[in-house]
Formats: sequence, structure tokens, C-alpha cells
Amino acid sequence: MSLLLLPLPGDEARASRLERLLGADRAPVAFRRFPDGETYARLDGDATGRVVVVVGSLCDPDSKLATLLFAAQAARDRGARKVVLAAPYLAYMRQDASFLPGEVVTSRVFAQLLSRAFDALVAVDPHLHRLESLDELYDIPTVAVSAAPAIIAYLRRTVPDPVIVGPDSESGRWVGAVADALGAPSLVFEKTRHGDRDVTIGGADGASMWKQRTPVLLDDIISTGRTMTGAANVLAAAGFSKAVCVGIHAVLVPGAYAELLRAPIARVATTDTIEHESNAIPVDALLADGIREAVSRL
Amino acid sequence: MSLLLLPLPGDEARASRLERLLGADRAPVAFRRFPDGETYARLDGDATGRVVVVVGSLCDPDSKLATLLFAAQAARDRGARKVVLAAPYLAYMRQDASFLPGEVVTSRVFAQLLSRAFDALVAVDPHLHRLESLDELYDIPTVAVSAAPAIIAYLRRTVPDPVIVGPDSESGRWVGAVADALGAPSLVFEKTRHGDRDVTIGGADGASMWKQRTPVLLDDIISTGRTMTGAANVLAAAGFSKAVCVGIHAVLVPGAYAELLRAPIARVATTDTIEHESNAIPVDALLADGIREAVSRL
Repeated sequence: MSLLLLPLPGDEARASRLERLLGADRAPVAFRRFPDGETYARLDGDATGRVVVVVGSLCDPDSKLATLLFAAQAARDRGARKVVLAAPYLAYMRQDASFLPGEVVTSRVFAQLLSRAFDALVAVDPHLHRLESLDELYDIPTVAVSAAPAIIAYLRRTVPDPVIVGPDSESGRWVGAVADALGAPSLVFEKTRHGDRDVTIGGADGASMWKQRTPVLLDDIISTGRTMTGAANVLAAAGFSKAVCVGIHAVLVPGAYAELLRAPIARVATTDTIEHESNAIPVDALLADGIREAVSRL
Repeated sequence: MSLLLLPLPGDEARASRLERLLGADRAPVAFRRFPDGETYARLDGDATGRVVVVVGSLCDPDSKLATLLFAAQAARDRGARKVVLAAPYLAYMRQDASFLPGEVVTSRVFAQLLSRAFDALVAVDPHLHRLESLDELYDIPTVAVSAAPAIIAYLRRTVPDPVIVGPDSESGRWVGAVADALGAPSLVFEKTRHGDRDVTIGGADGASMWKQRTPVLLDDIISTGRTMTGAANVLAAAGFSKAVCVGIHAVLVPGAYAELLRAPIARVATTDTIEHESNAIPVDALLADGIREAVSRL
């Protein structure tokens, strides 16, 4: 029996695209908000014996958590055999440890909630900070989809002679894979974080040997954009042309996009894991593959 | 050992008042929001062996759910023996049944989440729509505190010759208790709901026999205010003076308060279960009693 896709509010267009890719059906779901801010949810159709895939990109997760859990419950109430969460952007991957006594490991609390509500999880490039795998957090089967093939295809098509630049050491894992596939050189800077919005970038010595190439800044999450603008300024100071700025997840808090466009950045290209005007790299096909893999493991 | 009070953001002043009433300590908790909307939580202090009371009024519950669950986890991580939720306003009491196939019983999902996170629950006048008791929803000990004593004291002090008026049959339970205690007559109207913000009020025949008295409209929740303004208009048409409008929970969605003040309403007086400029009836002492009772049942 075909999959039943149940989009959260805001993910309807994504669900339509996945429907075509997966030959899936759409669950006739309705969400609305009561005047007092409570959520109403209804799944108007049978799901008996079916696999329901809740489709929801979890940027701004606190506002979506209740809706997400109601969506899972709606599927179960309607007899779903299994309920899968496809979260192109997975939230709460930041605080995966306590650094100060008493800090709540929110990654774990969030993962426990989702593990109770869903039977499997698919996410695109989850921000595995200090973890090797989602399995360290989640008690259910997880599939981490890599956006790298889509990014590689995009860069091959649009940037003839790139040098792939990671603005910090954490971006190294993406930078290496993308540079290797493109046969391009790579650089990885070092970031020092002084606060949520305050970073300095170093480690750019010797970078200028590649300055005839187009610098491609690559990171998994662009949030405040400070890391990217810092790295773009370092590149400009080293004599590079304006950078192409590639991010997997366009979290892009208010004001961040405008700030990026004021920096020595030629353009910003993000994948569509979070809907944003900078989206230029579709990952639906990769996400669909990930959903198929998760379903095969149920 | 004394109780440890842990307020959610916005409930700090309430926690200070409860601290004095209960001889409790304040948990040194810090919440903040990352630029991308995720919550950070830290409890900077030991709670080993203690009863922690998370204090949070749950108006606009979706925005608070993650924070609430992190607060409970913070207390457990710090060794709390038991964790109690004191929610002067308890949310998700509206959808306590499915009326259409596939409607999620959000009351139950919300109650299950809270029952897993907390060891007991205290709430002021939960909106028991079709239920007799919170125990039908919650798997943990619950205490439903009645605001009636505070409302009775307020009306005794401020309204010499009242007639207590319920704008709909659901308000009947509060109306009867308050009218009896004041030795005042009472009326209960009938409300027909056509939508979230669209109601008509009937059943006012014979009301005018009390029109020499000051009408006191009494309901548990004032949300859009449409029920109250409808009833105030019916009273005005029957020859009454302007009503005193008493609500337990000042949910008061944007625009509602201004609309109430344009109706034939002398003033709006609410309890402080939800902070609002109309708050005139403190219920801290009653809430403190409820917390003591819940703790005695752990």
C-alpha cells in the first residue's frame, strides 16, 4: 500500500513534491489555531494498516512541537501501522551535552519526545555536533540523508573553478566530501565563538594561493550568518573574489540574509530543507530516498 | 526540607509571591532563546531529595511546551525527589472529545505529556468541559483549586447588591456557588456558538425582575470576550445597569479587552491566573494551598 504523507502547516508544497517522487497519497489533514493559541488537528480519512509519513521541517521547533505530536497522534488514531517523521531540518541538535552544571541536554529531551511519538526518523544532514550518529540520541531507526550530492551537482553546474572553504572546523566534513567530488582544493578556517552572534575567523594563512579560484563557503546551518560573513571578509582581505555562500539549512534569523548580501558574497545558495528565498538546491529526491530507506527498516 | 520553586519565563513575580506564602526557596533557573528559536535551560543549584514546583501559567501553551518539559528535566537532572507542576491556568482543556471523525483529543495528548514529565499537577479552575475531574485525563495526582473564595471576597467588598449572571450553562457551576455564598440571586443564560468568535445569547426572559441589582457576569475563561459582550448587551436591553464582568482566566486574545470596555460593562475584573491589566482578584493564597495539598499527596 502506498505511503500516506501528512504535512505540518507550511510543509504542504514539500509534501506535494514528495507525493510525486514516492507515488504516495496525501493525508487529508487540517490544523488550525484557536484564538487562545491552542492547536486543533484532524485527519479526515482512514490510515488503517498504512505507513504515515509526517513531513515537517523543524525550524523554530518550540512553536511546532505540539502540532507535531498531535500529527503523530492523528495518524495513530486513524489506525496507522507505523508513523515516520521526515524532518528535512531537524532541530535541537545544538545542546547535546552539559557544559555547565545543570544545563539541560535539550537534544536528548527532544529526541525522547520524538522517539515516543514516531517509529522512525529521516533528517537531512542533522547537525551532529559532538555525536557520530542520531542513534546516540534517538531510540528509533534514523536515516541521516546527505545533501552533498545535490550540492555537488549545483556547484558543478554553476561554479567552474571553485575552492571549497569551510568557515570552521565543524564544516570540515562537508567541505572534504564536496571538494573531493569536484576535484577542487579546499580550505578550512578556524572559528572562535564569543557569543550567539559574535565570532572571529582565523587560520586563513596561505589561503591566497587559491585566490584565482571562486571561493565557495560551505556550512551546514546558516543562522545569524556571522560565521559566513566573517569568513567572506577574511577571503576578501586575502584577495579572493566574492564568495558563493552555500548552506544546507537556511535557518537565517531575521536580518541575517540582508547582512550576508552586504558582505563580500556574490550569492547565497541554500537547499530547500527550510523554505527561504535563497533556496537554489532542491533535496526532495534525496529526502524521498531517505524516506524509502526508513520505511524499509520498519 | 522547603519546596523549591522553579518559574517559567513570565511567572517570576508569581513565584516570588508563592515563595513568601509557602516559605519556599527559589530555584536559580535560567532560560534563554537561541537566535533560531530553540530554548536553552539551566538550573544552577542542587535539588537533591527536594520537591521542585514548576510554576507556569499555560496560556499560549504551544509556545511554552518545550520550555515546560525542559524545566521538569532540569529538576530531575538536579536530583529532585518529585516534580510538581503548578499551572494557575491549565491549557488544552477544550478538545476533550472527538466530535468529527479523526479529530485529535488534544486534551489527552497534552495530559499524557504532562503526566510523564511531572509527579503531580495543581491548576486553578481547569475548564472541565465535559469531564468531571482532571483525573479523567491525567495519570498523576491532580488538585483543582477553586477561585470561588477569592471571587466571593472580591464581590462582597465591591458590589453591594449583585445578581450573579452566567452567560451560558457551563458557567452555571461557578454562578451557583458564588450566588449562594453572597446570598444573591442568579441567572444563567443560554449560549449558541456559531464559530470561534461568533455566539448568540438567549434565555434572558424574566431576567428583568432583578434589574435594580448590579449584574455581575461570571465565567471561567474570557478569551475573545464575545460571550461576555453578548450577555452584557442582553442585560442592557433588559434594562440593567452596566455589568461587572468577572472572569477567572484572562486569556483575552488581542483586541478582546478593548471590545469588552466598549460593551455595556462597568469594569472587567479577573483573577491573576494569567497576568493582565484587568487582574483584580489575587488567587496566590488559594494556589499555595493547592500546592501544599498536592505535595501532601506525593
